[in-house]
Amino acid sequence: MREPRQERSRTTRRRLMQAAVECLGELGWNGTTVAVIAERAGVSRGAAQHHFPTREDLVTAAVAHVGDKQIVELRARAAALPSGPSRAEPVARMLLDLYTGPMFRAALHLWVAASTDEALRGVLVPLEARVGREVHRVALELLGADESRPGVRETVQATLDLARGLGLANLLTDDTRRRGQIARQWARILEPAVGAPAGTAGAAAPS
Amino acid sequence: MREPRQERSRTTRRRLMQAAVECLGELGWNGTTVAVIAERAGVSRGAAQHHFPTREDLVTAAVAHVGDKQIVELRARAAALPSGPSRAEPVARMLLDLYTGPMFRAALHLWVAASTDEALRGVLVPLEARVGREVHRVALELLGADESRPGVRETVQATLDLARGLGLANLLTDDTRRRGQIARQWARILEPAVGAPAGTAGAAAPS
Repeated sequence: MREPRQERSRTTRRRLMQAAVECLGELGWNGTTVAVIAERAGVSRGAAQHHFPTREDLVTAAVAHVGDKQIVELRARAAALPSGPSRAEPVARMLLDLYTGPMFRAALHLWVAASTDEALRGVLVPLEARVGREVHRVALELLGADESRPGVRETVQATLDLARGLGLANLLTDDTRRRGQIARQWARILEPAVGAPAGTAGAAAPS
Repeated sequence: MREPRQERSRTTRRRLMQAAVECLGELGWNGTTVAVIAERAGVSRGAAQHHFPTREDLVTAAVAHVGDKQIVELRARAAALPSGPSRAEPVARMLLDLYTGPMFRAALHLWVAASTDEALRGVLVPLEARVGREVHRVALELLGADESRPGVRETVQATLDLARGLGLANLLTDDTRRRGQIARQWARILEPAVGAPAGTAGAAAPS
């Protein structure tokens, strides 16, 4: 009896979190109530509140969950790339595409809402810091970057801040083509700037 | 009689636009109604609607106005910098600080609201394109960048996308210190990448 119940519980949580990300992206923070999320997930409101007592709990868990999933996918896609210098551009492209999907859209609604909402800010800031550190670690791995060299840490940080800026530029219009041109140029800049022959470390790194 | 009336009209418009930017930053798009803006500006609601028939008209005019003002200020501050290679870092810092103030905060509320609001998107997208082109032109000037060289255009674009990403990173927490470190490294990357000895052109360029 225990196993299936736990399994069911996990499925319910996953469905609620997935529905929360979709609602945020489509309806914004104001439209994303627990009732709306529960209905989309096909879960009763009571069950939703059993798993996530408040709306803040639910949406931040959702963004954290999707963020973690995205990092796993990123590592898997990078592991499939060939090693050697031809890696630089696809890695740059992968990193600069990182914030162009529904996950970033949902997170952006949350960030902006949190800028005028103390309670939401309180839960979001530590989450943002944790996910940011995690993404930074993966970017280092993929770029095969040696952070002990001066400037490398800042260049990798700049890459991720650039990625977030490109996510913003993709919010209202499809910016894919321009982003591709920037990624090509970025790969040229990154290779000497991060110091290691890009791609020799990433593919083999254990994750 | 005509001059003072025109003057009064301009003052009213300016006060409404200033109040709109403040309201957006503090209350978000949902809280920023024409009535709330008019009250903050000390203007009757009828007068507000005489100048700006819809809420969309008012807030987009406000963001455009503040954007233009910001570009004028940027040019003035850059003109005050010394020429020569010592210019690279202060110019990088200026560009990367561009989206850390109340103007970006207001624009961000609009962008995010527009992502779930067709009517707002319709007025915002052309405005964003115009302001984006203008800022790109100023950045080229300040960096003394030669866009005819391959990759320079994309590097300057990346600088402004990075600036927007840094604006986002500064939304919920004070990111000034980290941004300063990134700007220092960015200046080192920019100098060879944009091709011209940074800063020889900017100060003297006519605007």
